[in-house]
Amino acid sequence: MVHDVKKSPLAPAAFPEMPAVGGVTFATAAAGIKYKGRTDVLMMAFDKGTEVAGVFTRSKCPSAPVDWCRAALANGKARALLVNSGNANAFTGKRGRETVKLSAAMVAEVLGCRPKDVFLASTGVIGEPLDPGKFQHVLADLSKRLIGGPWMSPAEAIMTTDTFPKGVSRRVRLGDGEVTINGIAKGAGMIAPDMATMLSFVVTDANIAPAVLQSLLSRSVRDSFNAITVDSDTSTSDTVLLFATGAVKEAPRIEDARDRRLGSFRKALDEVLLDLAHQVVRDGEGARKFVEVRVKGAVSKRSARRIAFSIANSPLVKTAIAGEDANWGRVVMAVGKAGEPADRDRLAIWFGDMRLAHRGERDPGYDEAATSAYMKGDDIVITADIGLGKGSDRVWTCDLTKEYVAINGDYRT
Amino acid sequence: MVHDVKKSPLAPAAFPEMPAVGGVTFATAAAGIKYKGRTDVLMMAFDKGTEVAGVFTRSKCPSAPVDWCRAALANGKARALLVNSGNANAFTGKRGRETVKLSAAMVAEVLGCRPKDVFLASTGVIGEPLDPGKFQHVLADLSKRLIGGPWMSPAEAIMTTDTFPKGVSRRVRLGDGEVTINGIAKGAGMIAPDMATMLSFVVTDANIAPAVLQSLLSRSVRDSFNAITVDSDTSTSDTVLLFATGAVKEAPRIEDARDRRLGSFRKALDEVLLDLAHQVVRDGEGARKFVEVRVKGAVSKRSARRIAFSIANSPLVKTAIAGEDANWGRVVMAVGKAGEPADRDRLAIWFGDMRLAHRGERDPGYDEAATSAYMKGDDIVITADIGLGKGSDRVWTCDLTKEYVAINGDYRT
Repeated sequence: MVHDVKKSPLAPAAFPEMPAVGGVTFATAAAGIKYKGRTDVLMMAFDKGTEVAGVFTRSKCPSAPVDWCRAALANGKARALLVNSGNANAFTGKRGRETVKLSAAMVAEVLGCRPKDVFLASTGVIGEPLDPGKFQHVLADLSKRLIGGPWMSPAEAIMTTDTFPKGVSRRVRLGDGEVTINGIAKGAGMIAPDMATMLSFVVTDANIAPAVLQSLLSRSVRDSFNAITVDSDTSTSDTVLLFATGAVKEAPRIEDARDRRLGSFRKALDEVLLDLAHQVVRDGEGARKFVEVRVKGAVSKRSARRIAFSIANSPLVKTAIAGEDANWGRVVMAVGKAGEPADRDRLAIWFGDMRLAHRGERDPGYDEAATSAYMKGDDIVITADIGLGKGSDRVWTCDLTKEYVAINGDYRT
Repeated sequence: MVHDVKKSPLAPAAFPEMPAVGGVTFATAAAGIKYKGRTDVLMMAFDKGTEVAGVFTRSKCPSAPVDWCRAALANGKARALLVNSGNANAFTGKRGRETVKLSAAMVAEVLGCRPKDVFLASTGVIGEPLDPGKFQHVLADLSKRLIGGPWMSPAEAIMTTDTFPKGVSRRVRLGDGEVTINGIAKGAGMIAPDMATMLSFVVTDANIAPAVLQSLLSRSVRDSFNAITVDSDTSTSDTVLLFATGAVKEAPRIEDARDRRLGSFRKALDEVLLDLAHQVVRDGEGARKFVEVRVKGAVSKRSARRIAFSIANSPLVKTAIAGEDANWGRVVMAVGKAGEPADRDRLAIWFGDMRLAHRGERDPGYDEAATSAYMKGDDIVITADIGLGKGSDRVWTCDLTKEYVAINGDYRT
């Protein structure tokens, strides 16, 4: 029962060009787990020697696949990834644990690897048992159809109520080699009818040790996937995995996160994750506006982020943006409720380049017509200067529309 | 520009009977601060010797009247209360501070008391200067029309986008006397078109020292006004004031919060605040369901409350309730994201008396038809048993409907 939704008005014009990445092949299938007439299973196979890092939901009630991946990461090696959409295998108890164990064993068998080298992710309904028999019959076939492209098909197979597939690619110099970073993602925060999850899989043909991959990934998600919010709700299944196949032999083996040769790679990885994170927000449920919230002058970066999220998660700020109302009073409210150091009489607020409030009151130069015109745009930037220190940060969100409520509230009625 | 809204379907059948309280009189006027054709100023006058306690918003950007009241409380004495609706006098800088000073001076003059015995509250638009000239001309007239009832008129004068006036009354034995506690309130959390505030004023004719009043009030709000949420947003102006006139001479002077004679009074005060808090939720913007969230088995009461608020503030839980969907998976998600100790495999969830999830999976006895029937009711109780300890708590909220978005997003469009 996926809602028949049109593509988000904030979607990129087209899916990007994504070249093949050495060392990885994939195939998708329509296993009918929940959806009809579309692919819902993705298998990726990695060459021997592929290494992996991951970050996961902070939920205290994670899904069975998240538990599995956390344990498998200790290994640092990866030979396969199996993803299904339509069922999250979350809150499924002992049966959930049996399903992941069996799934990994089945994939290991068809690909000829160890179960602990198989990574798993599931997205969809919570609390419904996921029958591994549902995709058992497609695994052997998948293993025979593995190819290196096009990347749009894996991006499509992992969608739930996403309105467009999400992909990003970068090519970058690493030592004497030129490596590729390809990433795909699905799903804004908590997605419509029970479709609870943000998943992202990034693959590079660079040769990077697991500890370094983990360091790069953990740092990079901080200002990308961990700096976005659609509705403040956190899925039980959020998973980001970064695989390095090492297929580009000209590129050096990297064993140290401080290795200077990583400079361009790090920057490109940051760009891939940030772009994917932004695409997730642009496909937020019912989203009509893409909103960047900048906070500066806070007592620390940590404090700036908390204030930024207080603004970005405020239903009143988000509904005002949906109504194209430059309601800076609600931004003041959200700064005030963040619980972080703030001083009303030093606070300044901008919408775009227009300063609307300054030193504890409305800016004398406030121009209602110019502000209203600005609010009609698709992309809105809100800046709050706390006026106390040098801490700054930024996060991204979307507006809160009636469509959000319809998508999430009209499920059974 | 108040939306033309119908009375909330969750409103009580009628405004309650509220007897006069010795030592307090009041009058209201239509000063045209923002609204047309309704009262928007309330003046209360208290007999000499009246004592007072208060609790206020935790916002770091409080309104000018909140700053004024906090300072005036040091005094412990009250002779007057002036409240206006239509303008919050928040984020109004130096002019805001001048307005409260001038307002208190004007009230003090017409009533013959000291400015520091005058308490002030304002509710309405943020960031618009409040011109004290707007109500200056009504003050002398108000002071001549002071009466002891009916209490519905003060409850109406302080409304902003409330759809019904809120009042509660209790009579209770205190020593040899019988005392009355009357309370009025307005406004669910953050109220429509910039109408940001929850205000409540409670008056008793008991004779209770300010420190005892403060202790009673601070304790009582913890499980009433501080245990409700409409949309997680916190106003710059939230104010609860408790006045004790001491007019019932048969009742003893209470100087110690541990005084045993306070038992019934304390219970009645708790009832008054809880009833008012529930009325505020029942008038939440767009509310169609009144929701009690109970958490038990948490590691502490504090942890239970955090989990309860994580559930009560989750947009996905709230939209599911609006859609009459017993979506316990979203409750699992909200427990998981609270950041408090929780163990998926010990968690149980009830909607009403029906246990839907147990020990980390769907309850074998789950009855879809019975659950759906339950969700059609006006009042919904969700219980989460964390299964770890003895901490329990409960909070109240309402559902999140398209009307909420319309009220808050359609302001200028």
